[in-house]
Amino acid sequence: MLVEAPNLGLRALFFDVFGTLVDWRTSVAREAAAILRPQGIDLDWAQFADAWRAEYQPGMEEVRSGTIPFSKLDVLHRRNLERLLPRLGVTGLSEATLRDLTLSWHRLDAWPEVPAALARLKTKFLIAPVSNGNISLMADLARRNALPWDAILGAEIAGDYKPKPRVYEAACAAFDLAPAQCMMVAAHSNDLQAAAASGLRTAHIARPNEHGPGKGESAPTVPVDFAAKDLAALADRLAV
Amino acid sequence: MLVEAPNLGLRALFFDVFGTLVDWRTSVAREAAAILRPQGIDLDWAQFADAWRAEYQPGMEEVRSGTIPFSKLDVLHRRNLERLLPRLGVTGLSEATLRDLTLSWHRLDAWPEVPAALARLKTKFLIAPVSNGNISLMADLARRNALPWDAILGAEIAGDYKPKPRVYEAACAAFDLAPAQCMMVAAHSNDLQAAAASGLRTAHIARPNEHGPGKGESAPTVPVDFAAKDLAALADRLAV
Repeated sequence: MLVEAPNLGLRALFFDVFGTLVDWRTSVAREAAAILRPQGIDLDWAQFADAWRAEYQPGMEEVRSGTIPFSKLDVLHRRNLERLLPRLGVTGLSEATLRDLTLSWHRLDAWPEVPAALARLKTKFLIAPVSNGNISLMADLARRNALPWDAILGAEIAGDYKPKPRVYEAACAAFDLAPAQCMMVAAHSNDLQAAAASGLRTAHIARPNEHGPGKGESAPTVPVDFAAKDLAALADRLAV
Repeated sequence: MLVEAPNLGLRALFFDVFGTLVDWRTSVAREAAAILRPQGIDLDWAQFADAWRAEYQPGMEEVRSGTIPFSKLDVLHRRNLERLLPRLGVTGLSEATLRDLTLSWHRLDAWPEVPAALARLKTKFLIAPVSNGNISLMADLARRNALPWDAILGAEIAGDYKPKPRVYEAACAAFDLAPAQCMMVAAHSNDLQAAAASGLRTAHIARPNEHGPGKGESAPTVPVDFAAKDLAALADRLAV
């Protein structure tokens, strides 16, 4: 049994992953360059990562709206990639290359303070990703970055994508907790706003460079319970 | 990316938990005694654990047959307990006591060699429980016994109970693997038989004392890929 945080009754912390815990932009740019440059393809790799990421919300919206059945994020990433490449003038890639590129999202690096801060937070709280990434992707990121999850929750468990309420609610239910005993931790105000609407507590982590230098949320734009400059600062605030 | 096991193409190991990794009988007997003895109740505690466990398969069968919708194992354990207690002449327990007793199943101890053997196996394979226990129960057992899971798969992910094929198949799908790349590890031949029918490889672990001295499977009664005297021996066989 975990000790409760003083005055909060908090038992579990749920984490957004892309942008909040891992630097997807630098990592995808690096992976894409490593895969495509040897094939004679030259692109602005950071721009490539941005363009791929720009397809992310529209792809998930097709699931959220019920236009297509739930498909795991790897499948959406692949489809979004195939939509993107012709626009960049890249054609004729092999199946193996397309597959390897799609799995770039399984090889993202954590922001530097994350592994140690998560280990601290785990001494006091149940911790789980509540990401739109699928289970295998989360498992690969956990191995790569030593993220010591108690369980992998999120979109694939819920069968829908954030910010749909059922994703947050399924995570609380998986741990047998009331929403008020759980806190969503994210670098994105819309994620936190949706979690709060389902009754969860919220913590914002500043990631001012998520989309490139100065292009990220340095502060929340919605009311939150905590706002911290990074995950180590959140651990300090939660007295871990 | 994990290295493939020589000649097998194995990528993931899935584990039965109750009986295979943890000694539910001794642990439940100990927990029940600790909770009920101070209330002046005296029972044969090992027999109490056996009687509670005897309700396990019939309870799940109501879900498997579609008689009741999927309910997590904690819910079935509670209902089975309430069916059992009057037969033992135990009545009038408080809600808090019933709840605490039900959570005995979250406080089971691993067989001695398990944590170290799992850590060895994790160096070569993705590892996950594919148990009928719910996510929160698996997370509590993992913390208590230092079981270093990559993810928690099993009944709650699949929405049904083993040995229904969908439980094994949902686990393979969560890791994006074909059944032949996965191996079910269990101390119960019926579990392994069902996993093999879905195309998984199988390993039997001897637990001759699971249901009391000499009352457990010391060898498989069905064809398996590996049969080992304990989990450390399986790790030896898989050259970890």
